[in-house]
Amino acid sequence: MLSVMLKMTRQQYETDPQVILENMFVAVMDNIFLLVLVTLLSVVQNVFFALKVEKECTGQHSKSHSPAFERLSCANRNCMDTYSTFLAVLWCAGICLSQAPAAFAGIIYLVVRQKYFVGYLGQTCQSTPGFLFGKRILFFLSLMCAVGIINHLMLSFGGSDYKEYIQIITKAASTLLLLP
Amino acid sequence: MLSVMLKMTRQQYETDPQVILENMFVAVMDNIFLLVLVTLLSVVQNVFFALKVEKECTGQHSKSHSPAFERLSCANRNCMDTYSTFLAVLWCAGICLSQAPAAFAGIIYLVVRQKYFVGYLGQTCQSTPGFLFGKRILFFLSLMCAVGIINHLMLSFGGSDYKEYIQIITKAASTLLLLP
Amino acid sequence: MLSVMLKMTRQQYETDPQVILENMFVAVMDNIFLLVLVTLLSVVQNVFFALKVEKECTGQHSKSHSPAFERLSCANRNCMDTYSTFLAVLWCAGICLSQAPAAFAGIIYLVVRQKYFVGYLGQTCQSTPGFLFGKRILFFLSLMCAVGIINHLMLSFGGSDYKEYIQIITKAASTLLLLP
Repeated sequence: MLSVMLKMTRQQYETDPQVILENMFVAVMDNIFLLVLVTLLSVVQNVFFALKVEKECTGQHSKSHSPAFERLSCANRNCMDTYSTFLAVLWCAGICLSQAPAAFAGIIYLVVRQKYFVGYLGQTCQSTPGFLFGKRILFFLSLMCAVGIINHLMLSFGGSDYKEYIQIITKAASTLLLLP
Repeated sequence: MLSVMLKMTRQQYETDPQVILENMFVAVMDNIFLLVLVTLLSVVQNVFFALKVEKECTGQHSKSHSPAFERLSCANRNCMDTYSTFLAVLWCAGICLSQAPAAFAGIIYLVVRQKYFVGYLGQTCQSTPGFLFGKRILFFLSLMCAVGIINHLMLSFGGSDYKEYIQIITKAASTLLLLP
Repeated sequence: MLSVMLKMTRQQYETDPQVILENMFVAVMDNIFLLVLVTLLSVVQNVFFALKVEKECTGQHSKSHSPAFERLSCANRNCMDTYSTFLAVLWCAGICLSQAPAAFAGIIYLVVRQKYFVGYLGQTCQSTPGFLFGKRILFFLSLMCAVGIINHLMLSFGGSDYKEYIQIITKAASTLLLLP
């Protein structure tokens, strides 16, 4: 955002559409690059999970369906099942309201997922360590989404814009996710 | 769109890049907030499904793989498998062509999915109630996508813009999805 | 991009915000329509896979869990598990850096996936033909993402913009994906 501001003051009197379009793309990137970073990290984690499962699978040629493989495969599937939900909510929250708290919550989610995958030691599929992990983070991101939409509707119909206040509150609230 | 128009007339002679950028973000939100709403609803539904499966799983400690659990888990997996496809097609259709019919189709899809999940009473996995539900809605959204791209290409190379007519036709066509 | 340029020169001296907003939407579409096209193709492929599984499932009423069905279902599940990852990385790479190489890599990924699904003839789930296919393409897209973010940060803090050079290099590098 800072870089756009600087550009703005520099090009205060240039109203060439070309320049405006270029600034637009920089502004868009400014508003999503943290989300892209978190998405990239989550993709790296996904690949790590998949390689882990593959290694376990090819490690023992005799019988492929050992309990360890079953558990790894199950943990991987649970992670993948909620992955699209997580991505959708992360991006919506980041675009509608503010990207920094959304990206922060996303990183915490990745840490929780890592813990979940490593610590998946239950006897049966989806038993002890919980089937749906990171509920609190998903709830926080959904709430951000909803608040963003409500704020947009208020801005459209009422004309009052509380976005700045809401963003400050959201940033403060996102630190609460660090509580165990 | 209305709010942007109003702002436009108000700021007709302000060509400050800062103002233009701010208007840009409001205009972007205007064009996606219905999609965000549908995405949010689908996330709530996903969490509902996952909690349902989890409850069934932890409800009976003796033997975890009862037929009821198997069926719930299978229905949940089928829903999750098509979820990313649905999201991708919903957003592409909404961005390329028009958000209102896309969001409407999305809501109908959610209703169909709810019915599918509740009514999943077949004997074997993916048998009676259909493996791929909501084919018609996915087809409608894909068609919207394709029409949007063709219109964009015609606008780029031919210079003729039929977007307004297409949007009216799409809105009318989306009501046909209500037919059983 | 060409169409925007043309429009730009035509409307060089029109600084009406309405016109700028309209140009903005055309410019956005110009930057994503190839990605939308690849997404649409991937959705068509997904539906093809799902119909294939459904046909195999309903084809034999006597016993639903034949080895052929198991294998098809497993191949479908592996494809779906990596689908959200693929979509996320494709769109991030396309938006952050350049859409043409990203879309090209996406099409190659779809071809690889088709080959994977058709050739899935291993004895056990996730055995011979690899559990995670298209690793090279996912790596290439992730790299594009990372380079795009680094370039944006350098532009924000350093002021130097190497995007043009990077895009040329990326386009050249994307042809290397054609190597078997």
